[in-house]
Amino acid sequence: MRISELSHVSGVPVATIKYYIREGLLPAGQPVTRTLADYREQHVHRLRLIRALIEVGELSVAATSEIMRKLDEPGAVMHDVLGAAHHALAGPARRDDSQDADEFTTAQRVVDDLVAARHWAVSSTAPARRRLARAIATLREFGLASDSNSLAPYAAAAETLAAHEVNTVPAGPRDVAAWHVVLGTVLYEPVLTALRLLAQEAASARRFGAAEGT
Amino acid sequence: MRISELSHVSGVPVATIKYYIREGLLPAGQPVTRTLADYREQHVHRLRLIRALIEVGELSVAATSEIMRKLDEPGAVMHDVLGAAHHALAGPARRDDSQDADEFTTAQRVVDDLVAARHWAVSSTAPARRRLARAIATLREFGLASDSNSLAPYAAAAETLAAHEVNTVPAGPRDVAAWHVVLGTVLYEPVLTALRLLAQEAASARRFGAAEGT
Repeated sequence: MRISELSHVSGVPVATIKYYIREGLLPAGQPVTRTLADYREQHVHRLRLIRALIEVGELSVAATSEIMRKLDEPGAVMHDVLGAAHHALAGPARRDDSQDADEFTTAQRVVDDLVAARHWAVSSTAPARRRLARAIATLREFGLASDSNSLAPYAAAAETLAAHEVNTVPAGPRDVAAWHVVLGTVLYEPVLTALRLLAQEAASARRFGAAEGT
Repeated sequence: MRISELSHVSGVPVATIKYYIREGLLPAGQPVTRTLADYREQHVHRLRLIRALIEVGELSVAATSEIMRKLDEPGAVMHDVLGAAHHALAGPARRDDSQDADEFTTAQRVVDDLVAARHWAVSSTAPARRRLARAIATLREFGLASDSNSLAPYAAAAETLAAHEVNTVPAGPRDVAAWHVVLGTVLYEPVLTALRLLAQEAASARRFGAAEGT
């Protein structure tokens, strides 16, 4: 198909498609003439994945490009593709500057305790450790419960979900499985956070709803 | 204390404090002279809550103001304070424009099915319903499992967590309880999403780690 049709099918403007090709996120089309190129179904799939990561996962073009490179590596094992996606999703620090170094160290110890208590095999450099430590330091800053015991219910819920998610990744070709891992990591997060809000409202109605009048 | 000390203690610049007072987020200080006002501990607490909502919860000033108004309403019941926080956190639609109306209606039916299946008492106008429907429509767009059964593990995890969260809200004065509800809703979300990434890495290591070589 022509680039105009690719744009129509994928919902991505032609200028953006050309930008993605220049940045190496998308392979160039097969040249037909000096000014025309032919695009295939694989371009449509790739563009959908890029849109999901950028529009839904709110990843930068650079971070998305990093994941695409890992996906295209012939020898990359699945665990590394997942690692690349996590690395990008856990993202750069946002509140590190405003947080006290001692407080951050204390929060990192809580993360270590949690990971050890659940017997999770997690790389010591996993960016999600930093992300969790930042969230815990913020809890501490506001005086909310943040020790390893208080967070155990969250860890237990995350563990049950993650086991389910990883076990339902299709066993087929590596690129299909990788596609599921990357997309699933990004797209089920808003499902989980929205469900938490709905479940909170239901729990609040039970505890505070009709009974409370003051 | 003077406004300069309030700024120092809370970490919020003087100009921002004045802006919050003008916008009605923070009560004005007690006038001492024509140009000086006295601020109390309650201003420090309120500023911390405002910072949490704006910096951590990424709420707009308008949305934060809405929650403050509800918190200050003498007759507001806890369930309504929680509702105001949820209303703000579930936020305005981001991807509605790009989503097909039929797809969105189908997604809304999945939300209704999920809420009914869990016997959750949730307002029909809860913004989190819309947020969940958007997330489900995106799953459908990318061909990921999104029916009521596939999402049941997420709903179950959310329900267990929410019951724990609502039951640990302190029973004390209404404003302390409200403070916990609002902050907890915002601040434990990044804890949960970071833990999901760590748990996924651990689950991936078990399934794909050492065994996979291709």
